[in-house]
Amino acid sequence: MKFLRCFYEGKDYHGLLENKSVKLLSNSFLEGDYKILKEVNISNVKILPPVLPSKIIGIGLNYNDHIQEMKDEKPNVPKMFIKPSSTVIATKEPIIYPKHMSKRVDYEGELGVVIGKVCKNISALQAKDYIFGYTIINDVTARDLQSIDGQWTRAKGFDTFAPIGPFIETQVDHMNLKITTKLNGVVKQDSTTSHMIFNVYELVSFISQIMTLYPGDLIASGTPSGVGPVVPGDIVEIEIENIGKLINPVKE
Amino acid sequence: MKFLRCFYEGKDYHGLLENKSVKLLSNSFLEGDYKILKEVNISNVKILPPVLPSKIIGIGLNYNDHIQEMKDEKPNVPKMFIKPSSTVIATKEPIIYPKHMSKRVDYEGELGVVIGKVCKNISALQAKDYIFGYTIINDVTARDLQSIDGQWTRAKGFDTFAPIGPFIETQVDHMNLKITTKLNGVVKQDSTTSHMIFNVYELVSFISQIMTLYPGDLIASGTPSGVGPVVPGDIVEIEIENIGKLINPVKE
Repeated sequence: MKFLRCFYEGKDYHGLLENKSVKLLSNSFLEGDYKILKEVNISNVKILPPVLPSKIIGIGLNYNDHIQEMKDEKPNVPKMFIKPSSTVIATKEPIIYPKHMSKRVDYEGELGVVIGKVCKNISALQAKDYIFGYTIINDVTARDLQSIDGQWTRAKGFDTFAPIGPFIETQVDHMNLKITTKLNGVVKQDSTTSHMIFNVYELVSFISQIMTLYPGDLIASGTPSGVGPVVPGDIVEIEIENIGKLINPVKE
Repeated sequence: MKFLRCFYEGKDYHGLLENKSVKLLSNSFLEGDYKILKEVNISNVKILPPVLPSKIIGIGLNYNDHIQEMKDEKPNVPKMFIKPSSTVIATKEPIIYPKHMSKRVDYEGELGVVIGKVCKNISALQAKDYIFGYTIINDVTARDLQSIDGQWTRAKGFDTFAPIGPFIETQVDHMNLKITTKLNGVVKQDSTTSHMIFNVYELVSFISQIMTLYPGDLIASGTPSGVGPVVPGDIVEIEIENIGKLINPVKE
């Protein structure tokens, strides 16, 4: 099933997507037990970020090919960072280039893991029960600041640096999904989630041994090789098989 | 004025403290325009964290004496990290030692800056108008994981690693406050906020050029020298002049 959040006739709704039709729901899909209020065509709604996470946990260096291109080393445990909730934007919304601080901003196409239930100290075997579904995230990164600062917080924390969506798919084989990033229509990243070093269940388990995860929290599971810079005027399009396409322009 | 959040007769309240008396408020002190519902003795309430921040932005290496003890270098810009909101606990609540991952956990006594208004791209001169008040934060850190990981997210992100409170003081000279940390009654940190490298206004301005700050967001403005380890059974007490005492036991 494909879920989304959207704006329709002056109000925010949670919705269920079937073909081109959005069923507007009485309450959050994360809570479940919703009623269908109305059915509208997707062209009549504005798509919002599918979740408003209390935290986004990013994972660095989780694809072997990306580690090689970054000339970095394979981590022994997942390399975590946090993107604040203030980074989140929806598909179609612009990534704002922070030219007052950075001269090199990169796209990073990633599978996003949406948590469904409060989760603390769970094993990888239990993780499946705590995942609501999967979405797409662009882990936009000011590459120059990443090396200058050492800590990645500034590089990954600018407003608009976490485009998410457009949908959350609850039924996919997340271990083997094709992931493609196009910059102005040209393929730049082309991989599959089967190349992750730590798989999604291992990531959820690891993070849950550190911090409690809440419904709607999001894990950005790492990017494959092919990362590269954007400039104002560019369009970044990340597609993950069976989930959808996340499309964002870059603006000054 | 001293504000707090508290639990009284089955409900959470925002409150205003005068001597030993808590005036329970009709709504959030961050919103203002509140009415006083009832007055109760502070011994009859359970003190809660004074804010539930959407993000806590920590600043590393912001006191010269602490940089010397860490054998580190003075940063050119504030060194940011993020503690997720899941780290927050109140005064008196236990810091849980994550012995499954760390063998060295340190206290770090710090001045906490509470944001009062939505704030983006402001100057240091404007910062005063966006600050609601000041509190105390213990930026608890798994020191061993900080160097192992490189990124500080895990080291500073465990549940219970951000004791905050007990009060927010709106009228203090934040540029010159005595800050003291005691471990089991023995003074370990003894400094003043006048020793900060980047002052509070510079911090708020810098962060606001990266990410939008929201009411209740918290900046942990860095720790002076004297950091050191805790073990289960310890009591950490951080006092900042004119604000209060933040007291937390350490447990397994």
